[in-house]
Amino acid sequence: MPISSFHPPTRILLGPGPSDVSPRILEAMSRPTIGHLDPFFVAMMDEMKSLLQYTFQTQNDLTFSVSAPGSAGMETCFVNLLEPGDKAIVCQNGVFGGRMKENVERCGATPIMIQDSWGKPVDPNKLEETLKIHPDTKVVAFVHAETSTGAQSDVKTLVEIAHRYGCLTIVDTVTSLGGSPVKVDEWKIDAIYSGSQKCLSCTPGLSPVSFSPRAVEKIKTRKTKAQSWFLDLGLVSSYWGGIGKRAYHHTAPINALYGLHEALVILQEEGIEQSWARHDRNHQILKVGLEAMGLSFIVDQPYRLPQLNAIKIPEGIEDATVRTQLLQQYGIEIGAGLGDMAGKIWRVGLMGHSANLRNVLIFLGALEKILSDLGAKIEVGAATKAASLKAAA
Amino acid sequence: MPISSFHPPTRILLGPGPSDVSPRILEAMSRPTIGHLDPFFVAMMDEMKSLLQYTFQTQNDLTFSVSAPGSAGMETCFVNLLEPGDKAIVCQNGVFGGRMKENVERCGATPIMIQDSWGKPVDPNKLEETLKIHPDTKVVAFVHAETSTGAQSDVKTLVEIAHRYGCLTIVDTVTSLGGSPVKVDEWKIDAIYSGSQKCLSCTPGLSPVSFSPRAVEKIKTRKTKAQSWFLDLGLVSSYWGGIGKRAYHHTAPINALYGLHEALVILQEEGIEQSWARHDRNHQILKVGLEAMGLSFIVDQPYRLPQLNAIKIPEGIEDATVRTQLLQQYGIEIGAGLGDMAGKIWRVGLMGHSANLRNVLIFLGALEKILSDLGAKIEVGAATKAASLKAAA
Repeated sequence: MPISSFHPPTRILLGPGPSDVSPRILEAMSRPTIGHLDPFFVAMMDEMKSLLQYTFQTQNDLTFSVSAPGSAGMETCFVNLLEPGDKAIVCQNGVFGGRMKENVERCGATPIMIQDSWGKPVDPNKLEETLKIHPDTKVVAFVHAETSTGAQSDVKTLVEIAHRYGCLTIVDTVTSLGGSPVKVDEWKIDAIYSGSQKCLSCTPGLSPVSFSPRAVEKIKTRKTKAQSWFLDLGLVSSYWGGIGKRAYHHTAPINALYGLHEALVILQEEGIEQSWARHDRNHQILKVGLEAMGLSFIVDQPYRLPQLNAIKIPEGIEDATVRTQLLQQYGIEIGAGLGDMAGKIWRVGLMGHSANLRNVLIFLGALEKILSDLGAKIEVGAATKAASLKAAA
Repeated sequence: MPISSFHPPTRILLGPGPSDVSPRILEAMSRPTIGHLDPFFVAMMDEMKSLLQYTFQTQNDLTFSVSAPGSAGMETCFVNLLEPGDKAIVCQNGVFGGRMKENVERCGATPIMIQDSWGKPVDPNKLEETLKIHPDTKVVAFVHAETSTGAQSDVKTLVEIAHRYGCLTIVDTVTSLGGSPVKVDEWKIDAIYSGSQKCLSCTPGLSPVSFSPRAVEKIKTRKTKAQSWFLDLGLVSSYWGGIGKRAYHHTAPINALYGLHEALVILQEEGIEQSWARHDRNHQILKVGLEAMGLSFIVDQPYRLPQLNAIKIPEGIEDATVRTQLLQQYGIEIGAGLGDMAGKIWRVGLMGHSANLRNVLIFLGALEKILSDLGAKIEVGAATKAASLKAAA
């Protein structure tokens, strides 16, 4: 039986990413492929750098997009800033801190773990205490916006503490970039990575990164080679024109980069502050609706991310039943809990192109119908009404 | 000054890759993004595995596409099959053998290099001699189709020798897959990688790979963790359903995979033998035309790849002048020489969707005009005439 062309179903992506991709971006990706050394493509890469500098709010020269998903962006930061035998502190408050630990270990470095409860932000006091015990730490790493819980941490304070002890900082902004404030220069972040498929609303597969001059200095003065050839910034950055003369390293994912370029042009047109405000506004409307249904968040209000809403599953309601009905009957995707949170929470993303009033109301309407059908004590219509009133306010 | 949308120029891609991408593939990539755990997407991944098994001519269960370009496919093979302290033989006859050496070293393993001249195939006798001296070698690696020179090596014989000494084999087929015979099971290759953007004619950014049961056994019984989290096959393969139960690892590049799926559907429709024959036929026509211009190949006939033609630059003709005129006046991209070959050769690719008679004739016509204008003793029209006669034969 020959296999035929793949035609995806129509979805509304309200999970932890990917988010819905604007037709403008999809169309940009379908433009004719040109060579990765074509002068027109190289000019596009220069524009991409400017657009990413705007998005990251930085002047860092070494700002580009890793040719692979966010996990590879994470690995790029670790393999270039750590050397065997180094100590690195990882502040963990969810799944992705655990992935950071794996990265540290595979670099031949020693991870010092600081644990905070899932759903809580990283505690700056614990970081300071740990640095007092381990003053020879080289790198402090943490997640700004934990995709597994929807909690955000105070980057500026954490970086300030790390710097006081002479450490470089690695910050995961996969879920925050474009959706809530990320200010690389103001917060003095040394190495940062993100993903294309969350609040930038591009297709998955690329990881924007940026490195401070201090991080670049470390990379230039390493005693050992980075353990990955593909992710070695000494080499990759020559292609992106960051360190030295432009030279071939690997073949860039041309059409994916057309897509990211368009996503960033859209963000620039809207204005990054306006994008942050839009994410917050839609979150507030969703919140009112969810609370009208009697649902609650696992993250305390001050640390709640607008773009990723982790909601407690009501007692007596089975996780998978609800998600399956949302997907099959309404074409709506939301996320399950990861790790310890599996079966206990839903993760509702309002990211990038998905963060709009229409989606909030469709989702609330579908959820109240499904929960009510499953026997939950819910007045159908109350959530959408409350949300509509909030939206009109 | 705000940056606006990027509109690439129209090119005919006759370099070492990317090749021209079929409008069918570009259109497939622009279909709506769905989630990487969506049941429809998971079904598409299963189809992708079958299509890749057909393309690689293998029954290997662990056959999938690495979510990053060919260089990451190469790294996937090395970091999973080598452990620190292992010995690996790398047979080098061009640029990409050098990249393999870098990979071996960064794994903490020891590379034993066998050198053949650029443009020559790998010498099986040298491999056998070296294995006699180093019988404790764990891995033998070489490039099937050297993209830097257009020379192909005898994979079957090289693998046979390596296996006699108990070694696993890593084979680079970035430039050959889809364009000339690659037979993983018949040739008993243990680990193979390729790229999406050459004879598969998809956009760049993905690396199809396949691993024999013997390679999988090695991966399962490693004493140390693979040094890359992103490329660790023990983890990646759970997502692709190769080892154990399907589980989330990283977010797959959804739309890029739509594109590769469509590229492989097109290949299946044509038939892989028919694709090989088409590449060979167009190469023969190009060859007649080039020879009518007095140009010659750097690779001896039996080892010449049909899809990558490395041509000596005639005396007195300046490399960059010709390539720039081809690009600016005709929109045709061809490749420059790499490393020692820079300034001495042109690399003309006839890969995938680019491998057709129209392109051969356009290229020959443009080249003879440019060379003649630059003062080369060439009868304009002779090359296209010879090629047309050959095509009609």
